[in-house]
Amino acid sequence: MKPEIPVVLPHRGPALHERREQIIRAALDHFRHYGYSKTSVADLAKAIGVSSAYVYKFFESKQAIGEAVCMHSLGQIDDALREIVHTNQSASDKLKELFSSLLSKSLALFFEERRLHDIAAVAATNHWSSANNHRAALYSMLKQIIVEGREKGEFESDTPLDEVCMAIAGVMTPFSHPLMLEEKTPEQLEERVLVITNLVLRSLAK
Amino acid sequence: MKPEIPVVLPHRGPALHERREQIIRAALDHFRHYGYSKTSVADLAKAIGVSSAYVYKFFESKQAIGEAVCMHSLGQIDDALREIVHTNQSASDKLKELFSSLLSKSLALFFEERRLHDIAAVAATNHWSSANNHRAALYSMLKQIIVEGREKGEFESDTPLDEVCMAIAGVMTPFSHPLMLEEKTPEQLEERVLVITNLVLRSLAK
Repeated sequence: MKPEIPVVLPHRGPALHERREQIIRAALDHFRHYGYSKTSVADLAKAIGVSSAYVYKFFESKQAIGEAVCMHSLGQIDDALREIVHTNQSASDKLKELFSSLLSKSLALFFEERRLHDIAAVAATNHWSSANNHRAALYSMLKQIIVEGREKGEFESDTPLDEVCMAIAGVMTPFSHPLMLEEKTPEQLEERVLVITNLVLRSLAK
Repeated sequence: MKPEIPVVLPHRGPALHERREQIIRAALDHFRHYGYSKTSVADLAKAIGVSSAYVYKFFESKQAIGEAVCMHSLGQIDDALREIVHTNQSASDKLKELFSSLLSKSLALFFEERRLHDIAAVAATNHWSSANNHRAALYSMLKQIIVEGREKGEFESDTPLDEVCMAIAGVMTPFSHPLMLEEKTPEQLEERVLVITNLVLRSLAK
């Protein structure tokens, strides 16, 4: 058996992972300015000075690039929310902050970055893995907070944990879903998130 | 002052209100078969053997016809749900039935009548008065049930009534909204409506 000899490729510009990042950044930039549907793979290739064929070595389709952009943006929301779980607040306060931050960060992503709203709507409606990951991340944060609240004696423990988490995750959906968020004004949404969080906290009371 | 003399118009076919109904029925039929966007006012006029100009005497635009069709379909849901409010069940059971019937009737309207889903989505997203009326009707039924539950001592009375109603109405939205309903299977929705109803009932407990 021959020993494996590491193959050293001639250096031809940025490393592969950097190229990948470069494509995602160009895509984010283009989607922000022109929208997802009006951006082609050729536009992105041109922006970073490579051929479309080269871009296809990294992403098999425009949708794959869209997924990567969504993964990036939703991942940033998840990272910010995860910090709430690790603060020193009571579980009730963590839950309140989780709801209100989810709303404000989703609004910022979908509306301040208006053009990104379109791609997020496509992702949510078509169950892209980025949207599914985001949902799973939220569910897991929620579960941690509920478990903590039960352990600390803040929340009731009679109802099965999974039932409680599934119900609260369902109740949260409208505050992270691009299509739902656009139907109300931010003020209406903020009022609604408040009264719904209070309802959830009453449902968790012992 | 001259006495008002009733004007008797010569009889020229169906009475006006019957014509209006006829246009709505033809529209419902066309929207079901071809969808809202693919139906023109001319198609409807042709179907009932009148001119487009004649149809425009009753409805100023295709959207106005769409509104009337939505009003009709959502009104049927509201009528059926209103019966729940007047049964002899406990307020908790009424609330459970209100949630599950809202889901099943919305699913039936939007999905068994697949083509009507499109128009309902347009109505919901653009806040057509039909969608607003439906929302208001649901809110009023909900409020009646909560008031009754408070009077009977089934529900807590500490939280302001309007806050409770607004929160529950918000929690119900995904079960009546055409865009939300299409993202899950009916089985997932039924499971979700059940766990969310239970969450709401826990939040109402004394």
